[in-house]
Amino acid sequence: MELDSINPYVLKVMPSAMRKFDHDISSDPKIIKLTLGEPNFNVPDHIKQAAIDAINHNESHYPYYWGYQPLREAASTYYQAKFGYHYSADQILVTVGATEAVASAVKTLFKPGDAVIIPTPAYPLYNALTTLNELNTILVDTSDDDFILTPTKVEQAIADHPDWDVKGLILNDPNNPTGVAYTEEQINALAPVLKKNGIWVISDEIYGELTYGQKHYSISKVLPDQTVVINGLSKSHAMTGYRLGLVFGPSGFIDEIAKVHQYTVTAAASIVQYAAIEALTHGQDDSKPMLKEYQKRRDFVAKEMAEAGFGVVHPGGAFYVFAKIPADLQMNSWDFVNTLAKEYHIGLMPGDPFGDNEYVRISYAASDEALAAAMKAVKQLVADDSAQTTE
Amino acid sequence: MELDSINPYVLKVMPSAMRKFDHDISSDPKIIKLTLGEPNFNVPDHIKQAAIDAINHNESHYPYYWGYQPLREAASTYYQAKFGYHYSADQILVTVGATEAVASAVKTLFKPGDAVIIPTPAYPLYNALTTLNELNTILVDTSDDDFILTPTKVEQAIADHPDWDVKGLILNDPNNPTGVAYTEEQINALAPVLKKNGIWVISDEIYGELTYGQKHYSISKVLPDQTVVINGLSKSHAMTGYRLGLVFGPSGFIDEIAKVHQYTVTAAASIVQYAAIEALTHGQDDSKPMLKEYQKRRDFVAKEMAEAGFGVVHPGGAFYVFAKIPADLQMNSWDFVNTLAKEYHIGLMPGDPFGDNEYVRISYAASDEALAAAMKAVKQLVADDSAQTTE
Repeated sequence: MELDSINPYVLKVMPSAMRKFDHDISSDPKIIKLTLGEPNFNVPDHIKQAAIDAINHNESHYPYYWGYQPLREAASTYYQAKFGYHYSADQILVTVGATEAVASAVKTLFKPGDAVIIPTPAYPLYNALTTLNELNTILVDTSDDDFILTPTKVEQAIADHPDWDVKGLILNDPNNPTGVAYTEEQINALAPVLKKNGIWVISDEIYGELTYGQKHYSISKVLPDQTVVINGLSKSHAMTGYRLGLVFGPSGFIDEIAKVHQYTVTAAASIVQYAAIEALTHGQDDSKPMLKEYQKRRDFVAKEMAEAGFGVVHPGGAFYVFAKIPADLQMNSWDFVNTLAKEYHIGLMPGDPFGDNEYVRISYAASDEALAAAMKAVKQLVADDSAQTTE
Repeated sequence: MELDSINPYVLKVMPSAMRKFDHDISSDPKIIKLTLGEPNFNVPDHIKQAAIDAINHNESHYPYYWGYQPLREAASTYYQAKFGYHYSADQILVTVGATEAVASAVKTLFKPGDAVIIPTPAYPLYNALTTLNELNTILVDTSDDDFILTPTKVEQAIADHPDWDVKGLILNDPNNPTGVAYTEEQINALAPVLKKNGIWVISDEIYGELTYGQKHYSISKVLPDQTVVINGLSKSHAMTGYRLGLVFGPSGFIDEIAKVHQYTVTAAASIVQYAAIEALTHGQDDSKPMLKEYQKRRDFVAKEMAEAGFGVVHPGGAFYVFAKIPADLQMNSWDFVNTLAKEYHIGLMPGDPFGDNEYVRISYAASDEALAAAMKAVKQLVADDSAQTTE
């Protein structure tokens, strides 16, 4: 077939290098993977039972496209209690995972030619979406600020692109891949420059419940009229495969995004929505045992990677350590992960797809055994390389 | 909030008038609805059990974004046997219902400014998607050809828009709302003009399994290099709320649409994909009892509506009768359905959202009792109106 019959903006984006790498190394039967952002916990039993009940009760018909009313009411209450979100049920839309939530938000807020800031390193979805929607993307490197976007960097990004209409910012807090969680002070410092410049924030807070020693602080508290919050149950309730996301925003915005959502997917699956009602009604504490495990693992991985000579910025949230490859290794992120996968049967994610080729990402949403094996392999690789160099 | 911060192409589309009307009349506790395209059957038990098993087996992790390999293999075999589709597993993508399948196909094939033909009356999704994607839409009225798109009409549509690059056609066969199913001869007559003009067909065959007295004939058989087939389990297996769609197309196209799909929704829900494997492996005959019922109901509704003075074109498929309101009533489709809902507590769908305000759509995927009550009410409305006019 002729590729000239394909939308050129679709040709411009590549399939997710992350998921392709994960898929490719999966053919090695010995591989231990710390690649995808995939909790190794199961969906809590009471939520599974709610999904089963929905199936048995034949809840298999079209849900109203905004999402079931009881689900939106449960979400309003749950996130008010968790993070102080101020959204009523009619300011909430139920989506097919956080991915559809971000995709529909980008489509709704921005028209072709608008410019959008993405602080990097960043989850690759964001840049793919700005490309697919024919937006101008401004990548802002945050690695010299401990991975925090500062107001100065926002001002600079605007000043550097005088011909572009900077309309948006896609913020991911806590951050994938860095694990960095913004403090209340950092958010409060960032808000005024966004307000002044009329910049809408798509605030992806999917890891909001996974913070360690600090409480998640949503930018929606200080910039309510220009913030769209993305959340969902994939990480907090280990429900990645169920695909349940949520969008919170001003009423006028939710009315608009509901149309995009409807014409993209019709609705999130009915049985999954029933599971979500249960999660948000009786699952307030479901993440607690996971959190405890994650924190222990984070401490272990951060320590081990530092010992192996990697640079690690303190990860306050999510379940990732983003570690800078020691200069001595003279390896970029692909060299490192390919060597580690082929010779040591350990899968880590290269930093390159996130925008920084000097780093690797370790997902510690994995078993203690897998993490121990991975850390041992990383240290072995460093030692082997050092021995080879010395020879 | 300011609406000038919303994408103007999003402002241009309206929420589905169909779903809004259905939602609005649902507040009447006495209402009997024949509105949505919603089977009144339940998901077959063996499929429900497969979904329950997947939940119990903790199949809650990210599926590979193309869809599980066994599901795509099952789809290849199933649809080859049903309709002679010629697609191998790697030419099949699993989507969030047929809606996401059509949305991703439109996004992948066409760039802003391309022109796309939509034969009307049509399912409103198609025009919403061409608008959202900034395409030029050519609506071609088929009501004077018994709702069949003819090659002459295609030639005429191209000739009428000399400045537009006509790149696509969205065909829905069997058709919603008319119930018309194209014959092999009609498809064979249509293909050459599309081939000659390099027009890609998005062939929405979601009702393909629901034909009466004729076998569904896919345009992909005669135009394989320019056809994208849309199908799914919503209608054939009464799985509307589960959201499971399928896209079939040339390999080069599937590689491209897989990216759009991934960056829109990540993947279809894992537990739903397991249900779908069961449906496509052991559910070949699931639609048979439904079909038998549908055919009986279709005959009843078509007869009753004709007796009430409505014009009915023979519906060979789907589960709709599209009936022309008697001129004597002097009502457009909104007048008619609003009167019928308010005064007789029966919900039918107005023809207007489908592009023809002189018709109403009756979904006969409803119980015999509901259909009998509806037909009685329609006849009563006609009689009451006639009495009033005579007074």
